[in-house]
Amino acid sequence: MNKERIMELLEQKKLMLLKAELLEERTPDIAEFLDELDPKTALMVFRMLPKETAVDVFAYLDSETQKNISQLVNEHELKAILDELFFDDMIDFLEEMPANVVKKILQNTTETRRSLINQFLNYPDNSVGSIMTIEFVDLKKEMTVKAALEKIRRIALEKETIYTCYVMDGERHLEGMVSLKDLVISDPEKKIAEIMREDLVSVTTFDSDEEAAALMQRYNLLALPVVDHENRLVGIVTFDDMMDALEDAVTEDIHRMATVGELNTSVVNAKPWMLLKSRLPWLLVLVFVNILSGAGMAFFEDTIQSIVALVFFLPLLIDSAGNAGSQSSALIIRSMAVGDVELEDWAKLLRKELAVAIPLGLLLGLASSLIGIIRADVGVALVVGLSMAVVVLVGSLVGLLLPFLLKKLNLDPATASGPLVTSIADIMGVMIYFSIATWYFGL
Amino acid sequence: MNKERIMELLEQKKLMLLKAELLEERTPDIAEFLDELDPKTALMVFRMLPKETAVDVFAYLDSETQKNISQLVNEHELKAILDELFFDDMIDFLEEMPANVVKKILQNTTETRRSLINQFLNYPDNSVGSIMTIEFVDLKKEMTVKAALEKIRRIALEKETIYTCYVMDGERHLEGMVSLKDLVISDPEKKIAEIMREDLVSVTTFDSDEEAAALMQRYNLLALPVVDHENRLVGIVTFDDMMDALEDAVTEDIHRMATVGELNTSVVNAKPWMLLKSRLPWLLVLVFVNILSGAGMAFFEDTIQSIVALVFFLPLLIDSAGNAGSQSSALIIRSMAVGDVELEDWAKLLRKELAVAIPLGLLLGLASSLIGIIRADVGVALVVGLSMAVVVLVGSLVGLLLPFLLKKLNLDPATASGPLVTSIADIMGVMIYFSIATWYFGL
Repeated sequence: MNKERIMELLEQKKLMLLKAELLEERTPDIAEFLDELDPKTALMVFRMLPKETAVDVFAYLDSETQKNISQLVNEHELKAILDELFFDDMIDFLEEMPANVVKKILQNTTETRRSLINQFLNYPDNSVGSIMTIEFVDLKKEMTVKAALEKIRRIALEKETIYTCYVMDGERHLEGMVSLKDLVISDPEKKIAEIMREDLVSVTTFDSDEEAAALMQRYNLLALPVVDHENRLVGIVTFDDMMDALEDAVTEDIHRMATVGELNTSVVNAKPWMLLKSRLPWLLVLVFVNILSGAGMAFFEDTIQSIVALVFFLPLLIDSAGNAGSQSSALIIRSMAVGDVELEDWAKLLRKELAVAIPLGLLLGLASSLIGIIRADVGVALVVGLSMAVVVLVGSLVGLLLPFLLKKLNLDPATASGPLVTSIADIMGVMIYFSIATWYFGL
Repeated sequence: MNKERIMELLEQKKLMLLKAELLEERTPDIAEFLDELDPKTALMVFRMLPKETAVDVFAYLDSETQKNISQLVNEHELKAILDELFFDDMIDFLEEMPANVVKKILQNTTETRRSLINQFLNYPDNSVGSIMTIEFVDLKKEMTVKAALEKIRRIALEKETIYTCYVMDGERHLEGMVSLKDLVISDPEKKIAEIMREDLVSVTTFDSDEEAAALMQRYNLLALPVVDHENRLVGIVTFDDMMDALEDAVTEDIHRMATVGELNTSVVNAKPWMLLKSRLPWLLVLVFVNILSGAGMAFFEDTIQSIVALVFFLPLLIDSAGNAGSQSSALIIRSMAVGDVELEDWAKLLRKELAVAIPLGLLLGLASSLIGIIRADVGVALVVGLSMAVVVLVGSLVGLLLPFLLKKLNLDPATASGPLVTSIADIMGVMIYFSIATWYFGL
């Protein structure tokens, strides 16, 4: 989309032209454009959109822009938007609103709807409940294919997907599913019971959205049924919501691997204090963890006093240990996230890590002893080379084992971040290096 | 799936029961089970599967298992499998086979098919061409909805998806698309031209699969048309292949951010030498980068000799600089990957980074000067605190700017890994810390 051109039209107040140009664009692009405007201008442009487009655009807006617009429109306008939103999009919106706004909105809805909304708002973040939708197609076993297709035709526009339809009994127990493909290729007179599939993958409302996404990806599903503890169908997860959840989960993992805490918006939209809040805690923790490496060095003060050249190689050694550890932990964390590695694989992977980290340590030891010879003497070179081999091995093992340990403790393995592994490897690196030096030089 | 039970049946050679149990399972689960068997047993179990299931399972096998099976079956069996595979799955298989095997297989196909296969095998890794499929539904503008539905019904089983259908003219130029939903809800007598959408998002064969995935995610598409330079439709990317490509792309990013090189298989299946090959190069590069920090320290040898206590705080300072830098770079790299941040945003983000990194540096400086007072004296504490503030700021800026620089040079921003940022921050940290110390103590 040509943002400059549209911005120009906006500044020149050529509103009819602006509207015409905007309506040529796709919904997510219009939403992104509004996200970048100041609240009042965003509202003005939003009000220019035809009602149906406006509702679609609203669902795609950043939560900050949603909040701004909802606070500027009148109650009647807001109700009109909310009534037209898909249920899951409305919940996403309400989740980000201040409690008093939600309360006001809920006062204007029916008793049944209010209790449904409250139920959805109570699902924890990152749970299947928080991303599922209730607008799915439900069929009965006794229906013919023809009747099912007629029903779908009638209700298609209100449903988030019609490609996967679920079969329930009178008490809403999940009995099976048929895809629209099955319906289209089947004899119209056949009963749903004859063509439905019964071996369904399903999740419950409190499962994590990441698990749901992994199942959908593994079995190539466009939708996943969500059941309660009595196998009653309460909602479905559609592939678009799953993809958003997956993107968020990956972002969270990548951030966590770099010790960045929770951040509910993108870097571009985040206020500086939000970034500060997400970055400071772990950095502070690591500062205090690092006291230990300082204390370790203080213990070897005499050795350092005798051969100052030793400290020139310290950054090299502790960095390499940390780097090797970061590599192992990243490999394991990612494999765990995609389900390739389970807790019980630890011993197998430990053996493999030894087969990798020992030659890795030896090769890096060789390289660094060459540097040692050039920059110091043979003695220092030997100590540096030997230390390198050991610290790379130790760093790799820490990087490998820490994610397993965290998973065992039911913590997120991604917390075994590069920086954390680096700090632990540092402490060990300092102790190993100066111990070897003290021993070798007989200090 | 109950792997232990199935394994037991296999060991007891209860093959009929084994077959019955296996056929209860879903295709990806059967494939995973075969992946874990030795080649001969895998072949035996594979041969027990009914032909149709066998082909489906084959498509899901790890490339290593595919290779093993294809080398053990006879030519006739292999041809039967390949003829039944979807075209893109067959290409995926051939891509991983040794050249002589591919040659032998190609000898047994028709001239037209052979040249098509060769064309697909030539698409670069990670290109749209390498993941697209040719089995899509094509319609004509003049068709009625009814005729289109009849055509779909007839060919549904041979197509990867029937939910998105493409409209082409006589020369295969892409004219529009209709979803199966549009077809099902439209009047059967309407012409396709009346209901098709013309403002399509499309990609070309040489675009990256990551770009294609980003478009599909942004616009919630189940399929994406792929055109050549003359807008002729040559294939489509379906959502399942897109998700696989996306998963690979994320894995590649996470690995790269930890300086792990290309790895075509999971950690579990990778041989030790493959892991060594992917890990060694960057560690070696970083060893040589780290010579600079050692050289920097050698330059300040006198300062270090005078106040040895200074080096006790070195790991703390350089680690914190590296950690802060890893945070910034991870935030930017991920935002770039999901399309939130573009090259031209650098100045805006630099200003924001200053607003975050200055207070971050001051707070960490305060914390570390407290440690300095406890472990050394007020002078050292002041130097450590001040240095911390500066190195955290500098580290953050390096972490922020490096991804932009790499993107500007058309390199992958994820190469601005934590370890690389850490090494650069180290060198700067050493110089800054000892400069401040030399100045403060008047050495």
